[in-house]
Amino acid sequence: MVYMSDEFLDQLIKEDVPYLDLTTSVLGIGGQAGKITFTSREETVLSGIEEVVRIFAKLGIKVQHYLPSGTRVAPQTLLIAAEGSAAGLHMAWKVCLNLVEYCSGIATRTRRLVDEARAVNPEISIVATRKSFPGTKQLSIKSILAGGAFPHRLGLSETVLIFKQHVNFLGGFEALPALLEQVRIETREKKIIVEVEDEDQARLMARSGIDGIQFDKWKPDELARMIEAIRGIDPRITLIAAGGINEGNAALYALTGVDALATSWVYFGKPADVAVQITPLFN
Amino acid sequence: MVYMSDEFLDQLIKEDVPYLDLTTSVLGIGGQAGKITFTSREETVLSGIEEVVRIFAKLGIKVQHYLPSGTRVAPQTLLIAAEGSAAGLHMAWKVCLNLVEYCSGIATRTRRLVDEARAVNPEISIVATRKSFPGTKQLSIKSILAGGAFPHRLGLSETVLIFKQHVNFLGGFEALPALLEQVRIETREKKIIVEVEDEDQARLMARSGIDGIQFDKWKPDELARMIEAIRGIDPRITLIAAGGINEGNAALYALTGVDALATSWVYFGKPADVAVQITPLFN
Amino acid sequence: MVYMSDEFLDQLIKEDVPYLDLTTSVLGIGGQAGKITFTSREETVLSGIEEVVRIFAKLGIKVQHYLPSGTRVAPQTLLIAAEGSAAGLHMAWKVCLNLVEYCSGIATRTRRLVDEARAVNPEISIVATRKSFPGTKQLSIKSILAGGAFPHRLGLSETVLIFKQHVNFLGGFEALPALLEQVRIETREKKIIVEVEDEDQARLMARSGIDGIQFDKWKPDELARMIEAIRGIDPRITLIAAGGINEGNAALYALTGVDALATSWVYFGKPADVAVQITPLFN
Amino acid sequence: MVYMSDEFLDQLIKEDVPYLDLTTSVLGIGGQAGKITFTSREETVLSGIEEVVRIFAKLGIKVQHYLPSGTRVAPQTLLIAAEGSAAGLHMAWKVCLNLVEYCSGIATRTRRLVDEARAVNPEISIVATRKSFPGTKQLSIKSILAGGAFPHRLGLSETVLIFKQHVNFLGGFEALPALLEQVRIETREKKIIVEVEDEDQARLMARSGIDGIQFDKWKPDELARMIEAIRGIDPRITLIAAGGINEGNAALYALTGVDALATSWVYFGKPADVAVQITPLFN
Amino acid sequence: MVYMSDEFLDQLIKEDVPYLDLTTSVLGIGGQAGKITFTSREETVLSGIEEVVRIFAKLGIKVQHYLPSGTRVAPQTLLIAAEGSAAGLHMAWKVCLNLVEYCSGIATRTRRLVDEARAVNPEISIVATRKSFPGTKQLSIKSILAGGAFPHRLGLSETVLIFKQHVNFLGGFEALPALLEQVRIETREKKIIVEVEDEDQARLMARSGIDGIQFDKWKPDELARMIEAIRGIDPRITLIAAGGINEGNAALYALTGVDALATSWVYFGKPADVAVQITPLFN
Amino acid sequence: MVYMSDEFLDQLIKEDVPYLDLTTSVLGIGGQAGKITFTSREETVLSGIEEVVRIFAKLGIKVQHYLPSGTRVAPQTLLIAAEGSAAGLHMAWKVCLNLVEYCSGIATRTRRLVDEARAVNPEISIVATRKSFPGTKQLSIKSILAGGAFPHRLGLSETVLIFKQHVNFLGGFEALPALLEQVRIETREKKIIVEVEDEDQARLMARSGIDGIQFDKWKPDELARMIEAIRGIDPRITLIAAGGINEGNAALYALTGVDALATSWVYFGKPADVAVQITPLFN
Repeated sequence: MVYMSDEFLDQLIKEDVPYLDLTTSVLGIGGQAGKITFTSREETVLSGIEEVVRIFAKLGIKVQHYLPSGTRVAPQTLLIAAEGSAAGLHMAWKVCLNLVEYCSGIATRTRRLVDEARAVNPEISIVATRKSFPGTKQLSIKSILAGGAFPHRLGLSETVLIFKQHVNFLGGFEALPALLEQVRIETREKKIIVEVEDEDQARLMARSGIDGIQFDKWKPDELARMIEAIRGIDPRITLIAAGGINEGNAALYALTGVDALATSWVYFGKPADVAVQITPLFN
Repeated sequence: MVYMSDEFLDQLIKEDVPYLDLTTSVLGIGGQAGKITFTSREETVLSGIEEVVRIFAKLGIKVQHYLPSGTRVAPQTLLIAAEGSAAGLHMAWKVCLNLVEYCSGIATRTRRLVDEARAVNPEISIVATRKSFPGTKQLSIKSILAGGAFPHRLGLSETVLIFKQHVNFLGGFEALPALLEQVRIETREKKIIVEVEDEDQARLMARSGIDGIQFDKWKPDELARMIEAIRGIDPRITLIAAGGINEGNAALYALTGVDALATSWVYFGKPADVAVQITPLFN
Repeated sequence: MVYMSDEFLDQLIKEDVPYLDLTTSVLGIGGQAGKITFTSREETVLSGIEEVVRIFAKLGIKVQHYLPSGTRVAPQTLLIAAEGSAAGLHMAWKVCLNLVEYCSGIATRTRRLVDEARAVNPEISIVATRKSFPGTKQLSIKSILAGGAFPHRLGLSETVLIFKQHVNFLGGFEALPALLEQVRIETREKKIIVEVEDEDQARLMARSGIDGIQFDKWKPDELARMIEAIRGIDPRITLIAAGGINEGNAALYALTGVDALATSWVYFGKPADVAVQITPLFN
Repeated sequence: MVYMSDEFLDQLIKEDVPYLDLTTSVLGIGGQAGKITFTSREETVLSGIEEVVRIFAKLGIKVQHYLPSGTRVAPQTLLIAAEGSAAGLHMAWKVCLNLVEYCSGIATRTRRLVDEARAVNPEISIVATRKSFPGTKQLSIKSILAGGAFPHRLGLSETVLIFKQHVNFLGGFEALPALLEQVRIETREKKIIVEVEDEDQARLMARSGIDGIQFDKWKPDELARMIEAIRGIDPRITLIAAGGINEGNAALYALTGVDALATSWVYFGKPADVAVQITPLFN
Repeated sequence: MVYMSDEFLDQLIKEDVPYLDLTTSVLGIGGQAGKITFTSREETVLSGIEEVVRIFAKLGIKVQHYLPSGTRVAPQTLLIAAEGSAAGLHMAWKVCLNLVEYCSGIATRTRRLVDEARAVNPEISIVATRKSFPGTKQLSIKSILAGGAFPHRLGLSETVLIFKQHVNFLGGFEALPALLEQVRIETREKKIIVEVEDEDQARLMARSGIDGIQFDKWKPDELARMIEAIRGIDPRITLIAAGGINEGNAALYALTGVDALATSWVYFGKPADVAVQITPLFN
Repeated sequence: MVYMSDEFLDQLIKEDVPYLDLTTSVLGIGGQAGKITFTSREETVLSGIEEVVRIFAKLGIKVQHYLPSGTRVAPQTLLIAAEGSAAGLHMAWKVCLNLVEYCSGIATRTRRLVDEARAVNPEISIVATRKSFPGTKQLSIKSILAGGAFPHRLGLSETVLIFKQHVNFLGGFEALPALLEQVRIETREKKIIVEVEDEDQARLMARSGIDGIQFDKWKPDELARMIEAIRGIDPRITLIAAGGINEGNAALYALTGVDALATSWVYFGKPADVAVQITPLFN
C-alpha cells in the first residue's frame, strides 16, 4: 500500500488534459452515458489499479469491478469495468491506460525475475534499485512491490552504502576498515554496506566486520567462488549481487549464494499491453 | 527549449535525497572539494543536460564543461565536468545520472528512428505519441525534441483526433461525415483527424473532406496500397501511420507514402549508459 | 468539462480564508445551521458553478439545487441553493461569489459575441485568445466554453502561428514561403497560420500554400475586400480576423467572409451581478 | 513590495508554454540573439514589472532597462528593454505582456480613482476590496498598491466586518450592540466594523460604540446627510463608503465626509495597452 | 474552523510514509481489519482532531467516535475510535498521534493561560503572536483558537504594528507623532499600534492619538503604574503586554490593567500525552 | 547538508508575509538601505542559518557574515550580518528569526544531550525519533544533525521496527520468532528491530536472532540488568533505549550499556534566544 496524494493524481490528469477534451467537446458526445473496460492482452501482474480507481472517481466515473494491484492475470482478463459520462471516460482513458500499462509492465517484469530467482533459491531477497525514471518513484516502488520485490534503498537519507565514489575521498579502500568503528557509532541501527570491485577489496572488507558487501557486475561463476570465500571469513555478512541482473540471468545469480539481488532491469522495457473499450451505455 | 520549473527540479532532488545523504555524512567527507564527470559509454544523443546543470547549481556545484541536449556523441565523450563539495556531488550524482540516462535513452532511440525513416523518405514527419510514463511528460517531450521528433499531440485539449472510442457514441462511422461540418465550425484552425480500422472506413473518410487519417497497426504493404488509393480520392489529406512503429520497421512505414509516423516506441527501452566519476579535487 | 484539481480549488479557498473567519468566530455564530442562495440579478450565462459545488463540499455544505455552467438564465433565477454551518457558509461566500461572477461575466460576454456573429454568419467560428489574466487560464477557458466559444490556442506548445516577431528573425516576409516546406515536414498534423499586416503580405502568403492567415486590427470593409481576393487565390485557406473584436463589431467582422473571429474582449469587463443570501435554517 | 514565489512565476510561464514554443522551434530561429522592448501606448501606471524582470531571468533574458511598478508614464515610454535568445524572448513575450497589461490596468484605474477622490478630499483613504479575480490576489494587491491604494481586507482571517449575512444569525440588528462587548474582548487590537443598510441601523450602531460603519451602495447626497448625523453622535467612528464606487463618482463620494472609499471597480476593465517589439540583435 | 487543504494533509502523511510502511508489509499483516483508539493520559484541551479524521478517511479508516477540537477532557478519555485495515492504521498512527499531541499541547497551554488571566480579569483579551514554528502556522493558529485565544497578527500584511526596528529608519521616536496622520490616511480601518520601550516613549505616544501601545517585557508592577498613567492621558488606547508572558505570570499581567496579553509561550513546550492502541478487530 | 526546495522557503516567507508588509509600507521607509544583525543571547548551537541566507537572497538582502549551522557559539556572538532595503529586511526579519530560534533550539538541546551521554559513553549513538512537529521534518532533521545526532528513522518506508501494535496482529510475541525468517528474506539489507515491554519478551527476542531490541520507558537500573543479560545471550544485538530520555537522564541511560539512545525530547522546548537589530545604513 503506497499512498499517493490527491495532488499527484490530479497532476497526472492535468498532464494529459490540461483544460478540455477538445475532440469529445466538438463531437458533442460528452453528455452521453458510457462504459469503459480494461482487459489484459497478455499474462500480466497488475499495478496502478487503485490509482485508476481514484482518478475515475475524480472524473465522476463509478467502478463496478476491479482487480487489485499485485494480481497476476491471464490474457483476456477483465481488469476494470466502470461507468460514467462520455466526457469523463475520454478524459480518463489515456492517462489511466498509461498508468496501468507502465506500472504493470514493471510489476510483471519484477514478478518474472523474482520467480526465476526464487525457483532456485527460495530464500533470496530481490530488491529494486533507485534507478527509476525521475518523477516516477511512487509509481515505480508501488509496482516493484506489486511484483514481489522490495526497495533496495529509497534514497540517500536512510541507508549506508559506500561506493568507490565515496572511497575516493578517503584515500583508498585500505582506509575504510579503520573508519568503520566511527561510522558504526553514528548508525548502529543500520547495516553498513560497501560495494567492492575486486577480490582484494572483498576480503579486506569481510575481515573488517562490515555488515554487507555489494558486488557490481561480477560474473556469476566468479561471484560464486567469492561468496564461498567470504562466508568462510564471516558467515554473518549480507552479500548482494548488483549490476546487469535481469530475468535471463537471475537464476544464475541466485545460485551464487548471495543473499540478495539488486536490479534496475525491472524499471525499463515495454509497458504491459492492455485493451480499452469505451462504449455507450444505452443505444 | 522546454522550460522546467524550479519546483519540478527540486522535487527530483528530494525524490532521491529527502533529507541528508547519510553515507557521506557518516563518512565525514562532505566538506572536501571534488570533481564530477559524466562520460558516454556508447553512441548517444544527449538530453536532460540543462536540467543537470541547474540541479548542480542548486547544490553549489560549478559546471566547467557540458554538451547541450541534442548533441550526438561517440562513446567515451566527456559530457559534463563540474566541481563542488563532496556533499553536493554525492547528492547530485544519482538523480542527475538517472536524468541523463533516461532522457538520453529516449533521445537516442528517437534519433535512430528518425534517421531510419528519413533515409528513405526525407520529407516524412516523425511524431511521438502521448504514451509517455505518467509524470514524465516534460522530460519525455524534451527528449523526443532532442532526438529530432515533434509531439503528435501533447494532450486532449488542443487537437481533434477521432477514435473508434468516440465513434461508438455516434452510432458508427457512417454518421461521421455528416457531423464533420459542425465540428469544422468550432475548430477551423485545427486539422480534423480520424483513426480508421479498415479500407471501407478509410475510403468513407477520404471522401468526407477530412483533414487527416490515422492508420493504427496496419501492415506496411497493405498500408501502402491504401495510401495510394486515398491519394487518388483526395491528395490533400494528411496520412499518419501509428501503432507498433519502431526503429526496425520505420523505413518500411516511411516508404508507404504516409506523411507522418506516430510512435510510442521511443519512450521505453534501456536508458543510455553513462559513466560517472567523482574524485577529490586535491589530494 | 474542464477538470480543476483539488489543490487549485483549495488555493482559491485559502486565498480568501488563510486561517479562520474572524468575524464569524468572534460573533460565535459558526455552529448554527444556515442556508445560502445565489440568484442572478441580470441575464447571465453561467460558469464556475461546478467549482462552487466542489468548494461547498469541501466546507461541509450540501447542495440542494444548482444550474450547470453554460445555462443562460433570466434575472432573478435561483442559481444555487445549499445548506451548511454558518461557519462553512461564511467561509465559502465570497470566494464562491467571486468565482461565479467573474466566470459568468466571461461566459456571458462570450455568448453575446457568439450570438452577434452567428446571427449574420452561422458557420463562423469564435475563438478566444491567450490574453486571459495570468493565473486564471483554467477558469477563463472553462468560461469561454460555457459561452459557446473555443480556445484559439491554449499556449505556445501545440500550434504554429507565425507573427511579425518571428519573421523579424527570418529577414522579412519574403523569406517565409521558402521556409514553409521545412516547417510542414515537422508539423504535418497542424495548420500553419501566419499573421499578416498588409495586402502584399496577405497575397504572398496566400500563394505560398499556407494553411491559414490571421488579420490583426483590419477594418471590416478592407478586410472584406482582402478576404475575397484571398479566396480567389486559394479558397482552402483558413482566414481569421483578430484584434479589437467585441460584441459591438462582431457582426461586421463576421460578414467579411472570414472563417473565424479571435477575440480577447470576452476576458475583461464587469463580473456578472449575482445576489447572495445567507440565512439561518431554523429560527 | 509584494514577494511572489518562484513557484508562482513558474506556473505563469508554464500556463502559456507548458512544453516547447512550437512555432519558434519549427522556424529554427530559437538560437538567434534578439532584443525585446515594452513600450506604453497610453498614459499608464505600471505594475507587474518586477515579475517580468524575474521571468526574463528564468528564461536567460538580460534586462538593460526597466521602470519600476508604481511609475506613471506617458504614452510612447520605453518600459523594459532586454536581450536574450529568440527562443527565450518568444517564450516570455505573451505571459509577460499579459502580466504588465493586466496589472498596469488595475494600477492605472486605481491611480485615477485615487486622484479623483484626493483632489477633493486629500485625507481620504482609498481601499480595494476582496473582489479580485480568484487566483490573482497577489497580482491584484500589488497593482492596487502600485496605483496608490491599500487593501480593504485581504481575507476573512484578520479583520472584523459584520454584514447582514452575519446579523441574520443574531436575530436582527437590534441584537448587535449587546454583543459588541464580547466581540471586543476577543479582538481588542482590531476595529470592529459593521455594514448598515439604512438610517436606523446606522444610528443604532453609532450609539453602540462600534469602531467603524460601512455604507453599501448609498447615494452620495443621502450618505452625506447620514455622515453628518453620525459624526454628531460619535465623531470617532471610521466611516466607509462601498458599493459601485468608480472613477466617475469617487469625488462625489469623497465629498460626503467619509473616511474611506472601498472599491472593487479598479479590478476589472481593459488591460493597459503596451506594445512589444522583438527584433534580432545582429542582422 | 481553520480549513486545511488536501495537499497539506497529504504532505503530512507523506512526511512520515513517503512510500510503503515497510514493517507492516514484511510482517504480512496489512490486510487484517483492526481498530485504533486515541485516549488522553492527562487533562487536555483537544486540537488537530478534525485533521486526524480527514487523514483517516484518506487511508480508508472509518471513524466511529471523536471529540471535536476545543473539547477539554479529563485523563483516560476516549478521544477517537476508528476501524480500518492494519495497513491503513499503521500508516496513520504516528502522523495522527503527532498531530493531536503537538496541537493539543498548544491548545492546552493556551487554555491554561487564558483561564489564569481571565480568572482575575474576565475582560482581558489573550492573543498569540506570530512566533510559531515555521511551517506550522495553520496548525498553530487552529490550536490557539481551540484553547480560547485569538491571533495577535497572522502576518505582516494586514496590521500596523510599529517596532523600534521601524523607528530606527524614522530618526527616532520623536518623529513618529508627526508621521501618524499620514499613516492614518492610508489605514483608517486599522488600529495603529506601537511598541514602546520606556515611559517617555509611552507618554509621547499616548499623547499622539495612537490607537494602541504594546509593552514588551515590562515588569508587572512597573507596567501597572504605566497603564494607569496612560489611561489618564487617553482612556481609549488599546494597551497590550507582550514578552515573556506565560501561565505562571499571566494573572499578574492581567491585573496590570492592560487590555490584552500577547504570548508566544503557548507555542512551545511538551506535546500533550495521548495513548494509542491498535488491535485486530476479529481474533 | 539537508537540501530544502525553493518552494519550501518561499512558503515560509509567504506564511508570514502573504502580500505586503503593511507597517513598513505606510511608514514609507521601505526604500531606505539598512543593515540587519542576528546576535546570540545565550550559548547556542546554530541551525537554520543557510536557510536564512537563501531567504535573504530572495528578498534582495546581501549577507556579509554568517556562521554555519552546527557552530556552537557563546552569548553575544554575531551570527549573521547583512544589508538590504528596509522593505526586504522587515519582510525577512521575523520568519528568519523564527527559523534560527526554533532550529537552533533543537540543535542546542541535541548537542547538550549528546554531550551528556558521550561524556560517560563515547561510543553511544544518539538518534532522534519521528516525533517532530508535523510539517517541520526538514527543519527538525537538519537541526538534530547540527546538534550531533542522527535520525532514528525518517519514516515508515525504510526501516523495520516492530511494535506491540504490530504484534497484536500476530497473536502475541510468541509468534514473532517463527516469523522472523520470512521477514529476513524480504529485508536482508536492514536490521530487524523489535520493541519489548518486559524481560520475557526481551529474552525471547534475544534468542530469536533478532538484529536489535528497543526498550521503551525502562528505568535505567532495570535496563542495565537487562542489557547485561541480553549481551550474555547474543552479544551482537543492537540495543536501544527510548522513551523519556532527556538531557537530565541521558548519562544514566548511556551507562546502562545500550548502543543507542532514541530521543524525542530534543524537538520541544524553548526556541533559542537570538537578538535582531535592524538599523539604517546611512544616517
